[in-house]
Amino acid sequence: MTELHPKGVFCAALTPQHDDLTPDLPRFVAHCRWLLAEGCDGIALLGTTGEANSFSVEERKAILEAALEGGIARDRLIPGTGVNAIPETVALTKHALSLGVDTVVMLPPNYYKGVSTDGLFAAYSEVVERVGDQALKVVLYHIPQMSGIPIPHEVIERLRTRYPSTFVAIKDSSGDQANMEAMIARFPGLAVLVGADPLLLPLLKKGAAGCITATSNLVGKDLATVYRHHADPAQADAVAAAQARIVAARNAVSQFGQIPSLKAALALRTGHEGWRNLRPPLMRLTAADEAAVQRGLTAVAG
Amino acid sequence: MTELHPKGVFCAALTPQHDDLTPDLPRFVAHCRWLLAEGCDGIALLGTTGEANSFSVEERKAILEAALEGGIARDRLIPGTGVNAIPETVALTKHALSLGVDTVVMLPPNYYKGVSTDGLFAAYSEVVERVGDQALKVVLYHIPQMSGIPIPHEVIERLRTRYPSTFVAIKDSSGDQANMEAMIARFPGLAVLVGADPLLLPLLKKGAAGCITATSNLVGKDLATVYRHHADPAQADAVAAAQARIVAARNAVSQFGQIPSLKAALALRTGHEGWRNLRPPLMRLTAADEAAVQRGLTAVAG
Repeated sequence: MTELHPKGVFCAALTPQHDDLTPDLPRFVAHCRWLLAEGCDGIALLGTTGEANSFSVEERKAILEAALEGGIARDRLIPGTGVNAIPETVALTKHALSLGVDTVVMLPPNYYKGVSTDGLFAAYSEVVERVGDQALKVVLYHIPQMSGIPIPHEVIERLRTRYPSTFVAIKDSSGDQANMEAMIARFPGLAVLVGADPLLLPLLKKGAAGCITATSNLVGKDLATVYRHHADPAQADAVAAAQARIVAARNAVSQFGQIPSLKAALALRTGHEGWRNLRPPLMRLTAADEAAVQRGLTAVAG
Repeated sequence: MTELHPKGVFCAALTPQHDDLTPDLPRFVAHCRWLLAEGCDGIALLGTTGEANSFSVEERKAILEAALEGGIARDRLIPGTGVNAIPETVALTKHALSLGVDTVVMLPPNYYKGVSTDGLFAAYSEVVERVGDQALKVVLYHIPQMSGIPIPHEVIERLRTRYPSTFVAIKDSSGDQANMEAMIARFPGLAVLVGADPLLLPLLKKGAAGCITATSNLVGKDLATVYRHHADPAQADAVAAAQARIVAARNAVSQFGQIPSLKAALALRTGHEGWRNLRPPLMRLTAADEAAVQRGLTAVAG
């Protein structure tokens, strides 16, 4: 059986911004380094948590280039490259490949709602055909609550049949444990990456390949503990303690809005005010909400 | 009282494509000319019906430039310029202004769902501030069934208070007649443009400024009749007949999917097969579905 790819704990990295809302590239690189030092296996940059859709194509390219120039190994990076316009998805994907980054996380086009399974298959096929590179490996991105475009099993089946070496994984951010279990059962060799931090533990036991999560911006170390030691009875206490911190942190940052909450937490951890910057339509937390998040996180640390 | 702007019948123009799915610019210009000859007051290019979100920023610029170079007057064009990434919305809007096209239709950023009214206000404000041109006139774009982002009256109020000469209009594609009536009543001076063809007639009677619709790709002449003569008792029969054709055409193209149906109808009218081309995730109709659309439209003509 082919080894699952990608696998491990991937952080859906936040994107720090200057006060003019341009990406703070040195701080982004420093954050990536810290995440890897904490134990993350890789960085899923330019995802929903990274505000990818709020950045232009050129800004997205610059963010990936900065990570590579900052010394992050190319096999640690799985950038998001899926946007609404196929020519831009193709351009972003080719750009990643040109830099030696061969695994990307790809949203489907998501402006039109209620599209057919034929249409969704055609959209992904069109990108693969236009990229035209056997090295490409795609992580499908199932996040229906945001994109409005679920990725049905039928489409996964057809894509894997037509492009077996390309569609290697899916990130499931729906929070629907039954869907993840069903995909693991139905698609041997498909790396199912859990998108909800607390579900990493139960789904590893079912055969998940790992996770791409938001709270790993704070608790990557705990997620790494769960990932590495979940099957070791001697580590059961450490795993249980890590899982408890993951759940508590996830709860703390989910009260008001995950992305502003995580950015507030990074501002508090690092003492850098600029971490609170966000692109509209996302807004920073009120002081009262931020205090509530902070109380939740202090309880985690305590 | 300031005259409403924009007003009249605007066609949400389809975008014809070559077989390689690049925009067929000469055919697009010819279509725009035909629409104006039919009686449309202007062209709302690069909207939902025009598959705008499926085109890259560069393609969108080329489509607007082609219309101008093809001799369409700049005051007849209201291009869509709103995308998810604010820098790209700013670039598209500045590009239109640089060509003398001062009125644009602007979707809000629509990847993140459930955004706050503060966030939505901030997103539009950020664009206006970055464009920094007093000439700019924005048509807000309310199409919650596609974008997932309704534009609440509170946000309209705040934008018009802060930028009174900029936020001049709203296109309401929700089909919610009560919402359009409420906006007409609450915001004197705001041009409410109806997004559903059959609703033009009833809403003109309430004070709507006109319409931006999809079916006008076929029945622009009838919409123009309704718009120009709805208040003239001597034209009551002509208006009623036009309205009946509008309703029938709208029904005919709404059985399977408006955009593929309208493109199929254009292919049938012009004899040009390429009109059926669409970018995924949209797909052309099956032969059986197209035949059903054709039957419905033949009944309209008969």
